[in-house]
Amino acid sequence: MDEFQLIDRFFKPLSRPADASVRLGIGDDGAVLVPPSGCDLVMATDTVLSGVHFPTDCSPRAIGHRALAVNLSDLAAMAADPLWYTLALSLPSASARWLRGFTQGLSTLSAEAGIALVGGDTVRGPLAVTVTVVGCVPRGQAVTRTGGRPGDWVCVTGALGRAAAGLAAWRRGQRRGATLVPFLYPHPALEWIPLLRDFAHSAIDISDGLIQDLGHLLENRPLGAEIRLDRLGCDPEDLEGLERALWGGDDYVLCFTVGSRQWPALQRRIRSRNLECRAIGRIVPGPGIRCQGVMARRIHPIRMQGYDHFRNKVPRARHVRPSPR
Amino acid sequence: MDEFQLIDRFFKPLSRPADASVRLGIGDDGAVLVPPSGCDLVMATDTVLSGVHFPTDCSPRAIGHRALAVNLSDLAAMAADPLWYTLALSLPSASARWLRGFTQGLSTLSAEAGIALVGGDTVRGPLAVTVTVVGCVPRGQAVTRTGGRPGDWVCVTGALGRAAAGLAAWRRGQRRGATLVPFLYPHPALEWIPLLRDFAHSAIDISDGLIQDLGHLLENRPLGAEIRLDRLGCDPEDLEGLERALWGGDDYVLCFTVGSRQWPALQRRIRSRNLECRAIGRIVPGPGIRCQGVMARRIHPIRMQGYDHFRNKVPRARHVRPSPR
Repeated sequence: MDEFQLIDRFFKPLSRPADASVRLGIGDDGAVLVPPSGCDLVMATDTVLSGVHFPTDCSPRAIGHRALAVNLSDLAAMAADPLWYTLALSLPSASARWLRGFTQGLSTLSAEAGIALVGGDTVRGPLAVTVTVVGCVPRGQAVTRTGGRPGDWVCVTGALGRAAAGLAAWRRGQRRGATLVPFLYPHPALEWIPLLRDFAHSAIDISDGLIQDLGHLLENRPLGAEIRLDRLGCDPEDLEGLERALWGGDDYVLCFTVGSRQWPALQRRIRSRNLECRAIGRIVPGPGIRCQGVMARRIHPIRMQGYDHFRNKVPRARHVRPSPR
Repeated sequence: MDEFQLIDRFFKPLSRPADASVRLGIGDDGAVLVPPSGCDLVMATDTVLSGVHFPTDCSPRAIGHRALAVNLSDLAAMAADPLWYTLALSLPSASARWLRGFTQGLSTLSAEAGIALVGGDTVRGPLAVTVTVVGCVPRGQAVTRTGGRPGDWVCVTGALGRAAAGLAAWRRGQRRGATLVPFLYPHPALEWIPLLRDFAHSAIDISDGLIQDLGHLLENRPLGAEIRLDRLGCDPEDLEGLERALWGGDDYVLCFTVGSRQWPALQRRIRSRNLECRAIGRIVPGPGIRCQGVMARRIHPIRMQGYDHFRNKVPRARHVRPSPR
């Protein structure tokens, strides 16, 4: 199988030529695309590497899913509808079996998200996948990290720490079961896009842990947050679970802020759409993230840490033991 | 230096926040971009890997240049003006010196091309750079690979085989001198964009060698080409030079076709802009690429080969010896 056969067999079927916004898809020097009128575009890129973002013995299907999911999550966090993506794949060898699994992982999620593959590059090298996504949002309605205001509710769109629990199970040798799903097949919160546009003052997706990513919503602004630990949905006796909820990465739930006046209307929309949402705290004036609740004493002081590729050599979703007081 | 300091110090300066089409640049989950009205977008992505696309001992400046240049070349081949790019960088360690050279390579070329860095991802891993570019072209005016017609002139926008000659010199241990420049600092033919829009029936950039890339212009169509070897600008006595011109990769000159009636008008534009262009042959009915001229007998039959990541294990820009007749 040569490079061109590989593209024809595995990647062209992902290109959805029926999409009217794709004038010309895979197979030329570039794709020709028609941007929707009256929209801003949102563009993001993320790489997943074997042994860093997924275990070396991870299934190709989970790798394909993850590479697209983490990028779709960025679009969701900006409240942008997915349009197109490109795929840069570095692969040690062209195994048809591996490629079948990988493209299944991509195609299931891309069909769900309504996003078309429009270009790519396949090279021989260490296993790494870079996806670049483009989405659209009505002009001026992108939700950014910087719009939070004092008094806003801090909300998350799902349970936290489940990916870290899945990773821990994987490390213990577990290879089947529901515990692994949030880790192997993270769900980008695309169903939240219209609600974010209508209600959110600011938003981010939680890839590096709640504390670090909530920190990005407060960064360079005279703002802090108070988090009610009892609202995270953790067992009060399970300190490890709480730590995963605060510092665990890879959950890809959204963290957003909403004004307290809009909160009742948002709650109605959430109920009517049967979505999961937890209001876990409030934005407050003055810097720092403070925790409240019966467990707070056990974890203070919160260390403002998350995953950093060049500072930490510890693996993602590690468990930070709080320093004893 | 952590991941966030690295982004602030080296990559945010490339983001050109003054660009009105960039509503929000680096630093959020995605960039917010305003597409020009009345335009199609062109999107392309290419990865460069250490030891595959550039020598492992290549300067970081040349790597930064190359990563962007090969992508800009794709935009030029589609006749699209550069707008925005994202950068996914996998890096073994965060060396300030390396990053300074790398971003200098990027910034010199991005300023020349008028393209803004709008997002990226930096991970620790084997050295690899994936750039994704977006450009724009007046609606319906993108130049593709498939518009060539019988009788069209086949043109190239510069000398061929110079990158292969540079690579050969590098392999012999040469580390300085003009011979290396076309190999280390390929020039994307952005100055050709308006002329392609006005004149070209089809176009491609020559990354994998003239024969292979010209083959893509003829692919799946009942067309062939006749190439006049004496027009390639090679020394008739230098068989190796001719082979580099035909099969050498990495030149990133454009190969395009133009109707013979438009040829005089195009020549005037070429002269007025002081551009280099060689009409090296013609599109003909019926498949196959045939060579004409005094050297033709020595290289027949042309082998329809170029670089393929999964079929060939030989390095790019290798020299294929013709089979004896």
